[in-house]
Amino acid sequence: MQPVLFDALAACGASAILISQASSEHSICFAVEPGVSEAARRAVDAEFQAEIEAGSVRPIRVERDQSILAVVGDGMRDRPGIAGRLFGILGRRGVNVRAVAQGSSERNISMVVARADEGRAVRWIHREFFHHAASGRLAVYVLGVGGVGSALLRQLDAERDALARQGIDLQLRGLASSRFMHLRPRRGGRLDAGAASHPEGWRSTLERGGEPADLDRLLEHLGETAAGGGRTVLVDVTANGSMAAVYHRALAAGAAVASANKLPFAGPIEDFRAFRPASAQNVFHEATVGAGLPVLHTADMLLGAGDRIDSISGVFSGTLAYLTGKLGAGSVWSEAVREAHGLGYTEPDPRDDLGGLDVARKLLILARICGCGLDLEDIEVEPMLDRPDLADLPLEAWWKRLVEADVSMAGRFADAASSGLELAYLAELDTTGDSATARVGLRAVPSDHPVAGMPASDNMFVFSSQRYQERPLVVQGPGAGADLTAGGVFADILRAWAQRGSAR
Amino acid sequence: MQPVLFDALAACGASAILISQASSEHSICFAVEPGVSEAARRAVDAEFQAEIEAGSVRPIRVERDQSILAVVGDGMRDRPGIAGRLFGILGRRGVNVRAVAQGSSERNISMVVARADEGRAVRWIHREFFHHAASGRLAVYVLGVGGVGSALLRQLDAERDALARQGIDLQLRGLASSRFMHLRPRRGGRLDAGAASHPEGWRSTLERGGEPADLDRLLEHLGETAAGGGRTVLVDVTANGSMAAVYHRALAAGAAVASANKLPFAGPIEDFRAFRPASAQNVFHEATVGAGLPVLHTADMLLGAGDRIDSISGVFSGTLAYLTGKLGAGSVWSEAVREAHGLGYTEPDPRDDLGGLDVARKLLILARICGCGLDLEDIEVEPMLDRPDLADLPLEAWWKRLVEADVSMAGRFADAASSGLELAYLAELDTTGDSATARVGLRAVPSDHPVAGMPASDNMFVFSSQRYQERPLVVQGPGAGADLTAGGVFADILRAWAQRGSAR
Repeated sequence: MQPVLFDALAACGASAILISQASSEHSICFAVEPGVSEAARRAVDAEFQAEIEAGSVRPIRVERDQSILAVVGDGMRDRPGIAGRLFGILGRRGVNVRAVAQGSSERNISMVVARADEGRAVRWIHREFFHHAASGRLAVYVLGVGGVGSALLRQLDAERDALARQGIDLQLRGLASSRFMHLRPRRGGRLDAGAASHPEGWRSTLERGGEPADLDRLLEHLGETAAGGGRTVLVDVTANGSMAAVYHRALAAGAAVASANKLPFAGPIEDFRAFRPASAQNVFHEATVGAGLPVLHTADMLLGAGDRIDSISGVFSGTLAYLTGKLGAGSVWSEAVREAHGLGYTEPDPRDDLGGLDVARKLLILARICGCGLDLEDIEVEPMLDRPDLADLPLEAWWKRLVEADVSMAGRFADAASSGLELAYLAELDTTGDSATARVGLRAVPSDHPVAGMPASDNMFVFSSQRYQERPLVVQGPGAGADLTAGGVFADILRAWAQRGSAR
Repeated sequence: MQPVLFDALAACGASAILISQASSEHSICFAVEPGVSEAARRAVDAEFQAEIEAGSVRPIRVERDQSILAVVGDGMRDRPGIAGRLFGILGRRGVNVRAVAQGSSERNISMVVARADEGRAVRWIHREFFHHAASGRLAVYVLGVGGVGSALLRQLDAERDALARQGIDLQLRGLASSRFMHLRPRRGGRLDAGAASHPEGWRSTLERGGEPADLDRLLEHLGETAAGGGRTVLVDVTANGSMAAVYHRALAAGAAVASANKLPFAGPIEDFRAFRPASAQNVFHEATVGAGLPVLHTADMLLGAGDRIDSISGVFSGTLAYLTGKLGAGSVWSEAVREAHGLGYTEPDPRDDLGGLDVARKLLILARICGCGLDLEDIEVEPMLDRPDLADLPLEAWWKRLVEADVSMAGRFADAASSGLELAYLAELDTTGDSATARVGLRAVPSDHPVAGMPASDNMFVFSSQRYQERPLVVQGPGAGADLTAGGVFADILRAWAQRGSAR
């Protein structure tokens, strides 16, 4: 039928600009200019009228609003990978290829796609083939330019070349404080962390040169970057309580999330579960517990390999560890707190540490990783300083009245010592019962307890499991500080990179 | 020219079974049965003789020994992903697609490939589309069915369903001892670890049902599995000193390696470097140091995130920690050794532990991860029992003469105690000097040293770095045992899975 078909086309002045017939010979597909499509249809149907009436041939079907994309290049025929990358990128991006034609001697692959898809298809093909970086690009957006954010930017900048030698093209594409942001322009332009060698560098840079913060625009920018291939990571080093929604949008756009912000993981359990699906995890938050210490990794590793975690306990706050250490050594409570505050170990308002809520959040995150459906309210929290009557005082007045606790505190530590025990601000998760129990507070421990005599201001995480039953697995070290926290986030960014293949 | 062309074809009785013309209209490609290709060529060239002589059309080029592959399925037109997977798998496997035809109304994508490629192309397409598992298959080959191997097989079997719920189809494809092996047949058949619920189950299964071990055949089998997609992991839980070559072959076949065997990593530095390229690591060996403890992970994490490790020290042998603990508590040397031997803490021949070589190998692996180009000879090793004259005695005679060291050992521990120190069998790496130094031996440490008073028979790893300078990062816990070591290997198998995307 081919000769007849093409005779008919030629007769009506229509030229097939693309022909595709699959080997089954059940049908043949050809493309003509829109202007002649109706004439071509009539001509061909007329030519085959008899067969159509006999039902041996179906009337021609015209599909309008189609575009032909042609990828042309020398030596394509000898590069088996090209068609794969071509159809791969279009497939991943949901572009339906309606017809394909590639001649064996051609340096040309032609595809028919809906005209509506033409623009994005061209854009993605272009990125896939002409951005060399695409395959090895690690694009980072950093939310938060405080101490941790600035430390992270310094670390990223310092490692840029080392990463490049591993084929990782690290690009800082966007940066935002709560008030300002700076997005890397599409062409050229560069957010160079090097410009920020001093801690507050970025904040000031932003406040001078940045535009007003606009998360919607930032996420849109991130989405376009993610669509361009490679790996895109949204970094949250804020203490913002409403970031969960932002994570969801970043994930939907195909990006990963690396976070040092506890709050999104200590909120509704549904968010937590969404961020940690059974497979293809794209949210990494090691730094939310113990800064750079391998704590979440340890829990994930044990559980992944089929171990059963029976309990996780320890000292999750270096600040409180410092205080208990001091009081154990005989210091006066109010003086120890002032000292810790002076050393910058506490929050500006020490009540934020003494309340124990920060420790409870870390325990909650660990409990949830262990599969316990707990909420923050389910954790029994005994504040280090149990004086609700002082909770609402202005800070200055609070400092003045802190001495009121000196005697009772001294008494508690003396009692413990007299019975050969040590007081520690302990976090304890027990998953062995019918329902998991989690509590946080000042506890008396025997001298052979792992946390007994541990270095002041360290963190310690003690894992007991089916396999680590006789003796626990212990991770210990400083669990706070801008550089250590940033290091933990950096390691997560690299994990997101290493696992990019399981993301799709 | 189309009408003329197809007239000419029809005239000589040749029917085009595949037509492909790219939109450029510079050329048209069609396929005919081999039998008529010569006739078709003559007919078409004759038809266009004038144009050919005028140089406006080139003579037809015939490519022989080509095959047409057609992928047919309902609703393909609505599944953008299919062409991508199709060309993707062929591209990755190096099959050159010479021509493509896909009609817009077709449920058929036809490709022309060299006949030589037909077989493997069909096989790979089939696996890609009809083995649902292929995308989520984790194929494992286990070398070694001793205590660790048997524990690993039990753990894998216990987690099979949990992994399936994560979309991971765990398949035990092959198993080998030093003498026997069992490879899972291509079709059907199943190596069910469940058959081996008791520790030695597999060994006996192998010795009854297995064929003689043949690494070449096993690696061939592994290569075919790896070519089938998913992720394939060679697990080495042997103590075989000549496995490096096997790793290289498994990696070349596209598989990953998970190992608890120290020897391949303590051999020539070139092997070590080859196993840990800057990017896309495919060899995982956490269990070679500290069994299931996150030791290598910690070093990799710190270095990856741009920290500089200044020193790694600690107690790397639970056996020797047990002995130093006992002697510190006043036990008699020879009795403590017999006790440890009785408890199964030592190797059958305790000299294998007391020599310190095993500890030195762990230190060497850590040093190499830190980038130090050390060899085993570069490590200063002071044996726990420094009696070279007893080294070559038969075991029984050695046991008898062990008492000769009781006095000197007691003396060393008494001296330390008298000066307020503790003796520990310490491994120490220092990378701060011009050239790294590494040593292993019995050292006196002050009571505030991290290893002082640590639980007997634990391991402890102490990392000091640029970021962990004031206070170190410490990982501690039992660092040996079949279940713990198997757990570490299992975690590595899952890491290999999670990083499968960066493997290609």
